[in-house]
Amino acid sequence: MKVVVLVGGVGGARFLVGLRALLPGPEHEITAVVNTGDDVWMHGLRVCPDLDTCMYTLGGGIDGERGWGRADETWAVKEELAAYGADPTWFGLGDRDVATHLVRTRMLRAGYPLSAVTEALCHRWAPGVRLLPMSDDRVETHVVVDADGGEKAIHFQEWWVRHRAALPARSFASVGAETATPAPGVLDALAEADAVLFAPSNPVVSVGTILGVPGVRDALRKTEAGVVGLSPIVGGKPLRGMADACLSAIGVETSAEAVGRHYGSRKTTRNGVLDGWLVHTGDRCDVPGVAVRAVPLLMSDVDATAAMAKVALELAGVDVG
Amino acid sequence: MKVVVLVGGVGGARFLVGLRALLPGPEHEITAVVNTGDDVWMHGLRVCPDLDTCMYTLGGGIDGERGWGRADETWAVKEELAAYGADPTWFGLGDRDVATHLVRTRMLRAGYPLSAVTEALCHRWAPGVRLLPMSDDRVETHVVVDADGGEKAIHFQEWWVRHRAALPARSFASVGAETATPAPGVLDALAEADAVLFAPSNPVVSVGTILGVPGVRDALRKTEAGVVGLSPIVGGKPLRGMADACLSAIGVETSAEAVGRHYGSRKTTRNGVLDGWLVHTGDRCDVPGVAVRAVPLLMSDVDATAAMAKVALELAGVDVG
Repeated sequence: MKVVVLVGGVGGARFLVGLRALLPGPEHEITAVVNTGDDVWMHGLRVCPDLDTCMYTLGGGIDGERGWGRADETWAVKEELAAYGADPTWFGLGDRDVATHLVRTRMLRAGYPLSAVTEALCHRWAPGVRLLPMSDDRVETHVVVDADGGEKAIHFQEWWVRHRAALPARSFASVGAETATPAPGVLDALAEADAVLFAPSNPVVSVGTILGVPGVRDALRKTEAGVVGLSPIVGGKPLRGMADACLSAIGVETSAEAVGRHYGSRKTTRNGVLDGWLVHTGDRCDVPGVAVRAVPLLMSDVDATAAMAKVALELAGVDVG
Repeated sequence: MKVVVLVGGVGGARFLVGLRALLPGPEHEITAVVNTGDDVWMHGLRVCPDLDTCMYTLGGGIDGERGWGRADETWAVKEELAAYGADPTWFGLGDRDVATHLVRTRMLRAGYPLSAVTEALCHRWAPGVRLLPMSDDRVETHVVVDADGGEKAIHFQEWWVRHRAALPARSFASVGAETATPAPGVLDALAEADAVLFAPSNPVVSVGTILGVPGVRDALRKTEAGVVGLSPIVGGKPLRGMADACLSAIGVETSAEAVGRHYGSRKTTRNGVLDGWLVHTGDRCDVPGVAVRAVPLLMSDVDATAAMAKVALELAGVDVG
């Protein structure tokens, strides 16, 4: 079975672990199309938070408590950069993590595209899931915030990590998206998929950013696979992260129903991308033209996550057995 | 008093500590012209071993036992790079040290010359000595060694660190030296100096490399200051490091006398650079046209090193009082 999943960071990575447990063995092929809108140059290093979170989580190197970065991490580089007064100081650049960024940066500077770099890094981590950046082009999410009576745009990481999404976001800009193309393999994977899932990731700055890469939305609308999303909103609150701050910036209510309607129906709307929408048990939800089901969506462990994935695949018209 | 010192890494840095102790206070200005022939790109980072050894030693951040790198160093980045299979694995890239290289690399890529980068890094370390790279241009020492019946040139660091100078060196090449110019301040410092000293550093790949930057030798021959070298060879052996392997490659005996003659007299030879040559007590030494004195040269502690520096300055015609 070929399954494609659109994912962001922590939530997406955990969902992939469950899906991988559900579909073990070489007869299944899971492809994750990973958001790279959060990527950032940091102290001269190219950092890809969502790709790394997926890679470390699937490869067994993640700090499970924090949800991002490496287990047994140390912070000498970060402390020393601060001692030099090197800005910014608010970004979590762990020592083990730095090695990943060094390998990536060196390869990028040598001319390799991000997709090839990701494949090279994955040789070590053997994630069991094909990780594709959404694009090899630089597409960066910037956030328009109030500043001194006017507005200014800051990098997503500055808003998310430094300000913890507490500065009201007026809007998001996906810098570079207009001229970006999907990374090699993305459109083919969508075309050849038996099912396409949206992980319960941030619908604005993770899945939304992937949908903003020219060609992806079209491919989703054209694929013969069923397309099913999993709601990251449970009981009117984000499962994790600060999706509510992102949703309010684009005028979408923080509810499973509103997010489902925001994605929209492939059949009955002009731009919609969903056939099915999976929400948490008890969340009332009606999305015109979209089949809705409610099951527990808490990803409390691998088995629970695999069970969610199983229902999502069924909703996409695929029988997992 | 204005003193200029030509220095390499560990030995040079220790000598500077002694000289700084001898000449404290704002009425003295010590300028170190530091070898950058050992500099290397390592995992995408620009590493300047001799500049860093001087900076860390004078700034109190050195690992005193090893002689290079940072005190309380950790090695997570290096271990992780090896786990990725990223070559080379033989270079000692400590976590704290990596932060220095990140700041440097970022500034270099932004267009700052190495001299400006060094000045910026020294804001933190406050070495009390003006550290000037010999050149802002890339000048790299390569070593010609035997390989498969022929010869090949490898970077100095590969020869020195990986092979511990055990591969016989056929010759040294200073790649880029022909078109290099001294860094801003170097020629002025030599012209305005009251005394110029050669630290007891490697006469081939440290002081010799500095002398190979076009303009430096001329400036040394023209300066009104006395020029005095301190022998790095004591009792027919290098004080530290593997200078003997370097000397034999250029056909110079490993003795204080042979090195003194290799530098040569400013007065009686066409290319010589010395007025005085300081050797270790008991080392027989005659260098035509050069005033030779023998004192203990072991740099066993700061006081002993300051005493050496005092005699060297006297030999250069300067009274320290």
